Amino acid sequence: MAQLKGACVIGQSGGPTSVINASAYGVIRTALDNPNITTVYGAAHGIKGVLNDQLYDMGKEDPKELELLLHTPSSELGSCRYKIADPDVDDTDYKRILEIFQKYNIRYFFYNGGNDSMDTCAKVSRFMAKAGYECRVMGVPKTIDNDLYGTDHCPGFASAAKYIATSCAEVYKDARVYDTGMVTVIEIMGRHAGWLAGAAALAGVVDCAPDLVYLPEVDFDMDRFLADVEAIYKEKGNCIVAVSEGIHYADGSFVSEAKTSATDGFGHAQLGGLAALLANIVKERTGAKVRGIELSLLQRCSAHLASQTDIDESFLAGKTAVEAAVSGETDKMVGFECTRGNGGYTCKTKLFNLSEVANFEKKVPLEWINAEGNGVSQAYIDYALPLIQGDNARATEQGLPRFARLKKVLAK
Amino acid sequence: MAQLKGACVIGQSGGPTSVINASAYGVIRTALDNPNITTVYGAAHGIKGVLNDQLYDMGKEDPKELELLLHTPSSELGSCRYKIADPDVDDTDYKRILEIFQKYNIRYFFYNGGNDSMDTCAKVSRFMAKAGYECRVMGVPKTIDNDLYGTDHCPGFASAAKYIATSCAEVYKDARVYDTGMVTVIEIMGRHAGWLAGAAALAGVVDCAPDLVYLPEVDFDMDRFLADVEAIYKEKGNCIVAVSEGIHYADGSFVSEAKTSATDGFGHAQLGGLAALLANIVKERTGAKVRGIELSLLQRCSAHLASQTDIDESFLAGKTAVEAAVSGETDKMVGFECTRGNGGYTCKTKLFNLSEVANFEKKVPLEWINAEGNGVSQAYIDYALPLIQGDNARATEQGLPRFARLKKVLAK
Repeated sequence: MAQLKGACVIGQSGGPTSVINASAYGVIRTALDNPNITTVYGAAHGIKGVLNDQLYDMGKEDPKELELLLHTPSSELGSCRYKIADPDVDDTDYKRILEIFQKYNIRYFFYNGGNDSMDTCAKVSRFMAKAGYECRVMGVPKTIDNDLYGTDHCPGFASAAKYIATSCAEVYKDARVYDTGMVTVIEIMGRHAGWLAGAAALAGVVDCAPDLVYLPEVDFDMDRFLADVEAIYKEKGNCIVAVSEGIHYADGSFVSEAKTSATDGFGHAQLGGLAALLANIVKERTGAKVRGIELSLLQRCSAHLASQTDIDESFLAGKTAVEAAVSGETDKMVGFECTRGNGGYTCKTKLFNLSEVANFEKKVPLEWINAEGNGVSQAYIDYALPLIQGDNARATEQGLPRFARLKKVLAK
Repeated sequence: MAQLKGACVIGQSGGPTSVINASAYGVIRTALDNPNITTVYGAAHGIKGVLNDQLYDMGKEDPKELELLLHTPSSELGSCRYKIADPDVDDTDYKRILEIFQKYNIRYFFYNGGNDSMDTCAKVSRFMAKAGYECRVMGVPKTIDNDLYGTDHCPGFASAAKYIATSCAEVYKDARVYDTGMVTVIEIMGRHAGWLAGAAALAGVVDCAPDLVYLPEVDFDMDRFLADVEAIYKEKGNCIVAVSEGIHYADGSFVSEAKTSATDGFGHAQLGGLAALLANIVKERTGAKVRGIELSLLQRCSAHLASQTDIDESFLAGKTAVEAAVSGETDKMVGFECTRGNGGYTCKTKLFNLSEVANFEKKVPLEWINAEGNGVSQAYIDYALPLIQGDNARATEQGLPRFARLKKVLAK
């Protein structure tokens, strides 16, 4: 493949993770060091930054501050949830992107995001090819949801999983201090896939497993749930339940959105989310003391508890995207191929066709969920446990996290 | 003071903290090593363990497991919220305690808890003196609320403060990724005192301060709150609010319990707590995208983010209690006397009379709260910042926290 010299742009999109900036740093650092890449731009708020001609010159940043991106949660360049049109239907945005690419001689486009971002990548790539503008496009995945097709796992998942498992272990301890019982319901992110909720079960490795785990891969049955909880509460005097926010009844309606269900007994909109809802239903039925805990967005931004494995792999994904693009690859997403088992955990990068991964959600295999639909099997533990190894070797300042402080100098 | 030889018992009481076990370990380790103390018992679920004759023989534990108590959150011996009667009114419990103390020749009673526990200590001590049974009684404080009188601060507060400040800094990052604005309301524990809510402001040290902080020391005014939020949201396009769960109107009613207030517009009981309530009111008024986050009990059990300063001081409090008791002290609570400023932070233990500290709540001084009643002053920061220094040098197992695994062998 012919050598391609020019500038590159990196954008971040979708919901942030604890390590999405580690991937961005992988791209930025590697691109800054690569002689084929003339300038490294960061798009403010993803593709919107390109459309609005708001590009930061990453070469103007202090290298030490850039390196702190490894430990800085959230999307430091800014994110967006902008759904780009189909170029065959409306190519306005694409013409503008081409204009900006030409203006800055951008020949490399790296996009750091989830499903939708891979779709954006694929569309941009297709349009540029059609327009005859040489530009290499690479997707760098991130999603705590872990639902991208092809890759063994997604950067960002492991850190959220580690936060969830650790928090569940700590709550397990807290929920057992009194000799009066309690039912605790912990609500975990994941609208359609149960990868994150399953991570609660990792706490079992240190003897702090929740008693019940409900994933959205299995239809939820309120009566069965209450029977499960009651049985454990009666036996142990205590019950900890982990639920995915995405659990739904057989008809597809989300349990969290139940407003007038006879089962839940509440006739009004829920303000407090699923954990509070389920906790209250359990209280009504069993009379037990209850507590609902929503891990909320802390599970996607708690960089202080990021998995070092995740940080390393996220950086690697960004680095590989640049190296592959410079060597001639385009239209690909960097993913992982891993081995587990006797030989230990190994992880290698692998390129996937963007068209294959975009707009497809990977769910937890049903055979990794127990027959009762209220827990995960050892296969899930074996899959996820290697990913949460290693503690974030982060920098602190006066006992608090020291995040990257970027100047964000706009390119002219 | 005459030498007193005999067994000791340690009990834990009230809501747990991330470091209450560090204090228990300070007592247990020091007592096990002291020749005047013949046996070290741990009471199962505080004073109830004494009443029920459920005492663990701490000498039967593996020393390495005991040491892991330094990093194990919650009350490992079990806690209780048992309010003991006034011995002048009903001495049934006290007679039973005396019976158990005599049975095991317990001459030292260490009680690890908050306000109520210090009250229990004082009452037990008074009864034993009256009964002519020689027994030295020492209180070892713990409370994330930091509301104990006399002592500079309470073991447990700093770790919760560190968790709160770190989480606020991480949420600050997360709340700023989109170019569309958001109002985030973070609910923090502290029913009567605002020490914990104030800790949110510590995130300002790393440029991630919440915009507004509301403490229960100041009467809450909903209209003023909404005006505050709206002004900041208009100016910055973003607003982060930290609120104490204990904020209340001028008439004393808790904002979290407002059910039919015309101001909040909701006519039903809140399931989701204060954060969800305020977020929804802000949404109705401003139309802004909102998010309510309740830090919930994670702020009192997240040992992975404990302050090492807090761990060291908690251990020291327990150790000092044993040493002081053996040297003849009784009827005291171990507290701290600290210096800050140019000479740096220093912390020494100091003994306080139990009768002075019991049943008195220390609040944040009004001069540490700004004139607008929506933030804390530098004096608060200077007070709290030294306490959150140092990261928990904890043990992990397969990427997860390795907590103490005690055998809990019941004494016969």
